Amino acid sequence: MLAGTRVNLNPAVDRLSPPLIPAAAAWLDNYNGACGPIMDLSQAVPGYSPPELLLQALARASSSPAMCSYGPIEGESALRTVYASHLAQSYQASIGAHHTHITSGCNQAFVAAVMAVACHGDTVLMVSPYYFNHESTLAMLGVATRYTPCDAGNGFLPDINQLADALDGVCALAIVSPNNPTGAVYPPALLQQIFEVCLEKGVWLILDETYRDFTDRRHSLFASNHWQDSLIQLYSFSKSFCIPGHRLGAVTAGTRVIGAVSKIMDNLQICAPRAAQVAVAETLEPLAEWREDNATEIAKRASAMRATLTRVPSWQLGAMGAYFAYLRHPFEGRCSIEVAQQLAGQLGISCLPGEFFGQGQSQYLRIAFANIDAPTIAGLADRLQSIDL
Amino acid sequence: MLAGTRVNLNPAVDRLSPPLIPAAAAWLDNYNGACGPIMDLSQAVPGYSPPELLLQALARASSSPAMCSYGPIEGESALRTVYASHLAQSYQASIGAHHTHITSGCNQAFVAAVMAVACHGDTVLMVSPYYFNHESTLAMLGVATRYTPCDAGNGFLPDINQLADALDGVCALAIVSPNNPTGAVYPPALLQQIFEVCLEKGVWLILDETYRDFTDRRHSLFASNHWQDSLIQLYSFSKSFCIPGHRLGAVTAGTRVIGAVSKIMDNLQICAPRAAQVAVAETLEPLAEWREDNATEIAKRASAMRATLTRVPSWQLGAMGAYFAYLRHPFEGRCSIEVAQQLAGQLGISCLPGEFFGQGQSQYLRIAFANIDAPTIAGLADRLQSIDL
Repeated sequence: MLAGTRVNLNPAVDRLSPPLIPAAAAWLDNYNGACGPIMDLSQAVPGYSPPELLLQALARASSSPAMCSYGPIEGESALRTVYASHLAQSYQASIGAHHTHITSGCNQAFVAAVMAVACHGDTVLMVSPYYFNHESTLAMLGVATRYTPCDAGNGFLPDINQLADALDGVCALAIVSPNNPTGAVYPPALLQQIFEVCLEKGVWLILDETYRDFTDRRHSLFASNHWQDSLIQLYSFSKSFCIPGHRLGAVTAGTRVIGAVSKIMDNLQICAPRAAQVAVAETLEPLAEWREDNATEIAKRASAMRATLTRVPSWQLGAMGAYFAYLRHPFEGRCSIEVAQQLAGQLGISCLPGEFFGQGQSQYLRIAFANIDAPTIAGLADRLQSIDL
Repeated sequence: MLAGTRVNLNPAVDRLSPPLIPAAAAWLDNYNGACGPIMDLSQAVPGYSPPELLLQALARASSSPAMCSYGPIEGESALRTVYASHLAQSYQASIGAHHTHITSGCNQAFVAAVMAVACHGDTVLMVSPYYFNHESTLAMLGVATRYTPCDAGNGFLPDINQLADALDGVCALAIVSPNNPTGAVYPPALLQQIFEVCLEKGVWLILDETYRDFTDRRHSLFASNHWQDSLIQLYSFSKSFCIPGHRLGAVTAGTRVIGAVSKIMDNLQICAPRAAQVAVAETLEPLAEWREDNATEIAKRASAMRATLTRVPSWQLGAMGAYFAYLRHPFEGRCSIEVAQQLAGQLGISCLPGEFFGQGQSQYLRIAFANIDAPTIAGLADRLQSIDL
């Protein structure tokens, strides 16, 4: 090769879009402040601080020399124990520490879950719209994807028969409930049907419940005698405890899958960072009420969102749930990327265009309403009224 | 499928060994304490605490609400800036923050580097013996591996001609210097030759310098006008700052590779945990002398290691360098796994068998001598003398 000639990159990575959240954030650069402070409704970031009890525990654990050494690959035993008992209680099921694996955030939990069950050339079924990092993760790993639609007419939920047909020949189904991007919460009965058809067809169900603490609807999948043969559940401490910067998530699965995940995690990064694990282990139980208060607060924000939208009837609520609202914008035929750019540049409202979440989503925007408080949400309609597109 | 029938796991993960470090640690379960306290020379863990200045910075950053939110994918700007300027000074080269990407430990840096340049079915050249997590990472990703030997007769360094021949048809070469497992430090002139042949053949050189702060030998690869076209350098803050539990590493590469790494990291875990990044950014410069003192201390431990070995001449030093010694055990024909099991169970010495690091390594053991202080190392010979195999 001639010096200076550039060698190849991995085409599976090269053809991925650059990260989408920073791209959307950059649209705010054009905003001149005319409509007031920026409303950041793009990346899901709880708009309140973690509690003092957790911050103190983080300070203690982070500065403990013992926590500066390597930890167990599967996660701190204290966290796995208290988390498993929390799960057992939440889902009224028999779940032990050995069914859990701690990861560095829920995206990593998804990576580990997919790698555990899918190899290059396998196919994973997703619902559309989908969480874009799931799609790009699968593309990066050379895992093919197939989609089953979640239509507006069906409340952005999949049709069980269509989904069942689409399962043939796939190794796993990936679902997010409460959903990202739409917010739609899958009814327990629908999840049960999905689980049963997965079990029947020998397909892994990867169920990402990142936002589950912001709703009180609980499925009964863990109560099945066969849950370990089909279910891989993902969770994010980051969101529930307001600590995304500390990156903390978990996989809950049968022992075979957990064994595979531990091999994967050992390669990916030996173990999740320890301090946040210890801090959350200490505070998971004491902060139960604090988390319930947050769920109540976010429900208030959801009400404020509905109320503000009644003032801009041309903006239709496609779906709404635990964290996100999925809005249909009034500009028929205009691409949602363009609309989101205008919302950012003109109005200081940062949100994500439906196009980021799959084909046919051009009429929609994802609004992480939970990021801002109810009084601020009330002002959203004023801004939306003034858009000039 | 019948309920209860078990569906498949990813065969590329299923056929990996379970993690090796915990397997070796379990061999200590048989030790009855007869020879004194356990000497843990298996996983590389600096046997001293992080400095108070860093612990305080960790406590502050971890408990800062601002650091609890998401950070930039590529890493905290403060850390990238100070780290790039540290690199520029160390290597006397022009390296900017945009050439760096922060990861959650150096294993993750390797994963990201490999994914950036190699896709499923590509081949990566490794040297043998190799760091086992590199090999298992490549196997997990479906990347084929080829090996060029580092023979004892050549100081456990590769022969440049053999290496050059083996480069045909591979997309990358992975090297660790100072080496894991042997400790051998690659001479700058050899690294220069390796770099040039990689550049000429259009092969990426992934150079893992996890242990570089424990030696003062610096290569000049970054001084080449073409370093961005071939070099991807990996680093571990974990080791140098004694904070492996916080998981902090870095990739240094050209902007094209950094762009690919940021897409990968966004999928893998959005961003590395932030608190440790901020704490290391604050203390990287003030702790320069502390790190030098550690390098001196570890050099002392290396001397103690040489001295203690003169008392057990049947145990031969294959290689030794910045952190590890690679010992040839005296039990001809006995597999090193069996020898390591006996060392653990009989003598309370935990180390890793050569078999973990590749074929033909059965006569060797990896000793992370830097884990324990010089007086303790002095007692190693007494224990080795008493082995009954």
